[in-house]
Amino acid sequence: MKHIISVIVENKVGVLARISGLFSGRGFNIDSLSVGETENPDLSRLTIVVNGDDTVLEQVRKQLGKLIDVLKVQDFTDENYVARDLMFVKTNVPPGKRGEIVELVDVFRGKIVDVGQRDMIIELSGTEDKLDAMLTLLRTYGIKEVARTGCIAMLRGTK
Amino acid sequence: MKHIISVIVENKVGVLARISGLFSGRGFNIDSLSVGETENPDLSRLTIVVNGDDTVLEQVRKQLGKLIDVLKVQDFTDENYVARDLMFVKTNVPPGKRGEIVELVDVFRGKIVDVGQRDMIIELSGTEDKLDAMLTLLRTYGIKEVARTGCIAMLRGTK
Repeated sequence: MKHIISVIVENKVGVLARISGLFSGRGFNIDSLSVGETENPDLSRLTIVVNGDDTVLEQVRKQLGKLIDVLKVQDFTDENYVARDLMFVKTNVPPGKRGEIVELVDVFRGKIVDVGQRDMIIELSGTEDKLDAMLTLLRTYGIKEVARTGCIAMLRGTK
Repeated sequence: MKHIISVIVENKVGVLARISGLFSGRGFNIDSLSVGETENPDLSRLTIVVNGDDTVLEQVRKQLGKLIDVLKVQDFTDENYVARDLMFVKTNVPPGKRGEIVELVDVFRGKIVDVGQRDMIIELSGTEDKLDAMLTLLRTYGIKEVARTGCIAMLRGTK
């Protein structure tokens, strides 16, 4: 089953290596991971998306909670949350197709951040499904490069 | 100096732990990191933002290139690139201030993804500076929670 796990850690050298080591030690391949700042400059927030056996993952979650630099671990799986990814796509722009691609970007409410003679970089944020849908449509023109952040998630409402 | 490094890796268990270990082994604290899928389902793209001594970082970059599962390493520092972050902010909404906050979100071209009685989750993508600017303005109302993806970057134009 797919799990989205949020981990608050202290900004110390080696924390990320220890956390990713915990997952790989149990044979989990991390689907996506993002590490960003929080409101407190001493803390970072990791969002990890991982697929795997629920029982083993529960053990990993508990071990995570025991690491000294880990302050909080939350599994969002059964919660009411919002999740988004960010993506850059460098798409090929075949002759005469620029207008068509610009329309597509508008429909998805994406942004064009760079325009070359034969290509274009599009920025798009949204759910994983939305990003995948745009990629499917752009494949018609030819995709040169993709960069995705991996997802961030947050619980709805006040806890 | 701040460096943005993009690394293309094979999706294998343990790659992330090895890469983050390389940085922590040299005493580098990673400012932000994002790992996402690429167009090839067997490959992932890591974007690492790190501050540190240029000479030592150059050594890390070379060692990265030697790892078996690493296919490509690019340092964007002196290149012409676009970079963006994605952020969720759960902001406090004091009585009578909802309209004011909604206007602010419009100015930044953010999106409101959840509305509670006393709070709101805002989604915003942009440069690091833009995200920081919004956080500064929201602090007036009180920020409850922040989740940031860390940046993704892509070279402009065709190489």
